[in-house]
Amino acid sequence: MADSIRLRMQELIQRKQQEIVQTLEKIEALESETKFFQDKWSREGAEGGGISAVIQNGTVIEKGGVMVSIVNSKLPPAAVERMRADHKVLDMLAEEQKKKAAEGSTEQLSLPFDVCGLSLIMHPSNPHAPTVHLNYRYFEIKHPDTNEILTWWFGGGADMTPHYLYEEDAELFHTELKKACDLIGPSYYPRFKKWCDEYFFVKHRKEGRGIGGIFFDDMGPEETSEKGRSAEDWLKFIEACFDAFLNSYPTILKRRYKTEFDQEQKRWQLIRRGRYVEFNLLYDRGTHFGLLTPNARIESILVSLPQNVSWEYMHEPTQDSWEDKTLQVLKNPREWVKE
Amino acid sequence: MADSIRLRMQELIQRKQQEIVQTLEKIEALESETKFFQDKWSREGAEGGGISAVIQNGTVIEKGGVMVSIVNSKLPPAAVERMRADHKVLDMLAEEQKKKAAEGSTEQLSLPFDVCGLSLIMHPSNPHAPTVHLNYRYFEIKHPDTNEILTWWFGGGADMTPHYLYEEDAELFHTELKKACDLIGPSYYPRFKKWCDEYFFVKHRKEGRGIGGIFFDDMGPEETSEKGRSAEDWLKFIEACFDAFLNSYPTILKRRYKTEFDQEQKRWQLIRRGRYVEFNLLYDRGTHFGLLTPNARIESILVSLPQNVSWEYMHEPTQDSWEDKTLQVLKNPREWVKE
Repeated sequence: MADSIRLRMQELIQRKQQEIVQTLEKIEALESETKFFQDKWSREGAEGGGISAVIQNGTVIEKGGVMVSIVNSKLPPAAVERMRADHKVLDMLAEEQKKKAAEGSTEQLSLPFDVCGLSLIMHPSNPHAPTVHLNYRYFEIKHPDTNEILTWWFGGGADMTPHYLYEEDAELFHTELKKACDLIGPSYYPRFKKWCDEYFFVKHRKEGRGIGGIFFDDMGPEETSEKGRSAEDWLKFIEACFDAFLNSYPTILKRRYKTEFDQEQKRWQLIRRGRYVEFNLLYDRGTHFGLLTPNARIESILVSLPQNVSWEYMHEPTQDSWEDKTLQVLKNPREWVKE
Repeated sequence: MADSIRLRMQELIQRKQQEIVQTLEKIEALESETKFFQDKWSREGAEGGGISAVIQNGTVIEKGGVMVSIVNSKLPPAAVERMRADHKVLDMLAEEQKKKAAEGSTEQLSLPFDVCGLSLIMHPSNPHAPTVHLNYRYFEIKHPDTNEILTWWFGGGADMTPHYLYEEDAELFHTELKKACDLIGPSYYPRFKKWCDEYFFVKHRKEGRGIGGIFFDDMGPEETSEKGRSAEDWLKFIEACFDAFLNSYPTILKRRYKTEFDQEQKRWQLIRRGRYVEFNLLYDRGTHFGLLTPNARIESILVSLPQNVSWEYMHEPTQDSWEDKTLQVLKNPREWVKE
């Protein structure tokens, strides 16, 4: 019997973690001897753990992490409640539970789940080199008594945050992601791109976190059977998404890491990183989910925050400056794939 | 007829704003010519506005703000729902509304309110000088038809965040606050100090934001009539709280702003400021309330964030170092007032 999708996803993310680390380390090696520091960790009170590969104080990369986590735990009732809307089987179970409660049962619905995923974030030193983030994960929810798989889904995405917009970088990043999405079907790139623009929106600033990419969640049996696709197809798509990253970001980083910059450009980068922190701490569901998980590994979740950041009161870029033009694009998402 | 409590609170916060700005400007003037920049603003789509006095890039104070805001707006139904538990009259109105809804009314409960307050935050440059925050505010909620005052309350507090603990500073800060609380009654300082330790707790780090101070909310008619005190008494207490600040923090700042420090101490300060940002963006109810208010003035809300901040992966202070000892106190709140 072939390995389960879950085991193959675990194998994929561990393999891609090493491939990404090696690729980025080669770029860092052009300028410094700074390496990724890899450490394994395990979670108290739950099965599972992960490998975090983190680079800090590099010359090319100021701070970055490539984190694999493989966790087996139980969904608290509140999480089941939140997930009901998107998963019929959870909705049915929650309804059953309500009936039981009405009949006097005090048992709470707490479902065992497996999740494995890879998260990546890179904050380069040079203000002209964009910050990048990706996360791909696979969820399985099991029956509390029989342990059979009740439902499963893939989620994730990738998005890029330039401080100085280079159109060719945005085009390359999006074109590679579109190629991956097209494997699943032509409707997916436009749908996932829109979802990304909507998700990474910094509401109180009325601007996007960056120039977007793709974002999706709950790609499970319902999506799959309706559209005639299998879990197998989704796993291939996830692998293609990793390749989209490997085919674009290293090229972009090599293009930009040596660009000359002045103190004003550095200042702008630090201020923009403040917006990044605002998004991650105020709105990012993954960050909140992580921080609320009992015995979560805080350092692996908050490695997403940049090393040096600054907040200035009432800073506004000069009209029509490069900074201002970049900001206008963040406020008005564009199409980046040339037909 | 004497002015209403609301008008007297407005007068108080504007007067104290100027007094605080002048006091801190005198300390900054010992080292630089940097002044507070004062600007008036008004809110689109609502009555009211404020005066923000902000200092940036000073030699003593790296960034700080003393902000007055006076706003008249309408509480959205969700806010009324949240506030019901603490205010009997809101609870009654919400119940009435539910009955009306059951009878087919589609009208939503949206109550006019007045709020005025002063918020202050100071991030000194020197790692040995503590960050400080205070906020005192007065709320009035009115009947949507008759405009009579349905309920009112005072809320606020003050807390201090040292990066290097000096016990005499913590003692002075708390002793002055206790004096103010004792005006209302001997039970208040212990109660408000505990409330502060609980409120300014950075859950995911399992540590306090600082060495505390006082925190309180919903000090209105229920608290007052039960305990035989008037709105007048609370207003006097608020004035005493401002004086507690003026009698402690300027002294503490003068003690510390010239302390010699090395790069490791600067680094520790920047990392600790990261924890401050984590608290403000992840947990602070005032920040969230502000950011969700339509047409809020984002820059006045987020002026609380320090200018230079950093996040390092897996940074741990050396055991028994000054940094470590300070952290242990943040994890285990102490009593600071000597009997």
